[in-house]
Amino acid sequence: MITSKDNPGLKAIKRLHDKRHRERAGLCVAEGEDLVEAARAAGLEPELMLVAGEDVEPRLLDGVSTLGSGTRVIGVFPQMWSEPGGDVSVYLHGVADPGNVGTLIRSAHALADGPVVLGPGCADPWSPKAIRASMGSVFARPPARASFDELHGATLALVPRDAPALWEVDPGRPVVLCLGAERSGLPDAVLELCSGRARVPVRPDGPDSLNVAMAATAALYELNRMAGHA
Amino acid sequence: MITSKDNPGLKAIKRLHDKRHRERAGLCVAEGEDLVEAARAAGLEPELMLVAGEDVEPRLLDGVSTLGSGTRVIGVFPQMWSEPGGDVSVYLHGVADPGNVGTLIRSAHALADGPVVLGPGCADPWSPKAIRASMGSVFARPPARASFDELHGATLALVPRDAPALWEVDPGRPVVLCLGAERSGLPDAVLELCSGRARVPVRPDGPDSLNVAMAATAALYELNRMAGHA
Repeated sequence: MITSKDNPGLKAIKRLHDKRHRERAGLCVAEGEDLVEAARAAGLEPELMLVAGEDVEPRLLDGVSTLGSGTRVIGVFPQMWSEPGGDVSVYLHGVADPGNVGTLIRSAHALADGPVVLGPGCADPWSPKAIRASMGSVFARPPARASFDELHGATLALVPRDAPALWEVDPGRPVVLCLGAERSGLPDAVLELCSGRARVPVRPDGPDSLNVAMAATAALYELNRMAGHA
Repeated sequence: MITSKDNPGLKAIKRLHDKRHRERAGLCVAEGEDLVEAARAAGLEPELMLVAGEDVEPRLLDGVSTLGSGTRVIGVFPQMWSEPGGDVSVYLHGVADPGNVGTLIRSAHALADGPVVLGPGCADPWSPKAIRASMGSVFARPPARASFDELHGATLALVPRDAPALWEVDPGRPVVLCLGAERSGLPDAVLELCSGRARVPVRPDGPDSLNVAMAATAALYELNRMAGHA
C-alpha cells in the first residue's frame, strides 16, 4: 500500500499530466473504472495500475487525479496510433480544444470505419480531458497523425458557407472529411487542395457556426445515410 | 476603481456561481467579451458590468472568474426564458451535464426555430459552463422550462436502438425532438407518451451510444434536410 506522495508511481502519473512528458514516454493516463475498462477491452496492458484502498491510500490517488471529485482507479497505458485509412475518416487541422477532439473521436468511432487523423495544431488526444470526452473510444479506435498530403481518396472540406448543402454532395468513397479550427476554419492552402466542399445548412438568424464536433457528426451521419447504412 | 475583494459587486458575482442563488435572483454571469457582447446583442441590459483595469483591479476580477485564465470583463444579466413552441424544438429529460445542455442550445439555435425545452433533472442553462458551451446562444435563443405534457405537435424520441433510422421517419411539423440522459435514456413513462421513435444508425463495432448533443445535432440536421432547408 502506497502511503507517501513521493512514491515514484504517483509522481510518474502526475508528470503524465504534461503533454511533453506524455509524448516522450508514449504513455497516457486513464482515470476511472470506465476508461480503464475501455483500455483493457482494446487489448492494452497497463504499465501501472493503482486502485484506491488496495494499492494506494485514496487521498493520495485523488491527489494525482485531474478529476475534481477524485477517482477510485488510475491506469497508465501505452499510447496507440493508427494509420490514415478506411472508407470514411476525418482529418482535423488546428482543432486545439481537447474536448472537441475527444468527442470527435467518439463520433467517428460510432459513425465511420476510419480514424480521426490529426494534422497540425490539434489538441493531444491523450490528454485526460480528450480521453474522457472520447468515453474510451480513443482506445478502441486510436487516432492517426498525418499531414494532408498523406490522405487518400476524396477530401471533402466542411465549411460554414459558400458551398452546397451536405445532402447535395456525394463525394464517393473513400472519403476524408476535413475540418479546421472553430473560428478560422481550414487554412486556404488546405482548402484549395480539397477535392470538394460542403456545409451544414444553418438558419440565417442562428449563430455564425456550429461546434466543430457537431458539424462533423452531422456530416458523418449524412455519409451513412447516403450509403444506406441503416 | 474597486480595490477590495469585499466589494459587494464582486461578492454578488461570486454568489451567482451557485445555482440556488442564480435561481433566486433570476440572474446569470457572462464572462469574457464575446459572451457579454452576445447578451447585449440579445437586448439584455446588464445589472452590473466590471471591466478589469477600469472598474476593478484585474486580479480581483480574476478572483471571481470561473475561468482558470481569468477574464477581462464580467457582466451580470437577467435570466431569460422562452415558452415551448416553434416548428422544430428539443425537449430534454435528465440531461445533467451543463456542457451538453449549452452545446445543444447552440445547435438548436443554428438548426431549429424553437427553443430547447428543459424537463426534469436537466443542468442549469445559466451556469457559467453552460453559457460558455452555448457560445452565447443561450441569450439569443433562451431555453424553456416545461414538462412533457406541455409540448405541442409530434414528439419524436431519439433512442439508441430498436427504432427506424432517422432518415426513414418524417414526423411532420411541429415536431419536438425528445432526448434523455446519456446512459439511462428517456424514462419509459415518457417514451410511451412519445408519438414516434427514431435512432441515429451507428456501427455495430462502435461505442454504445453517441453523445446526447451529437445525436440531437444529427437529428436536427436530418429534419432540415427533409424539409429541404438549404
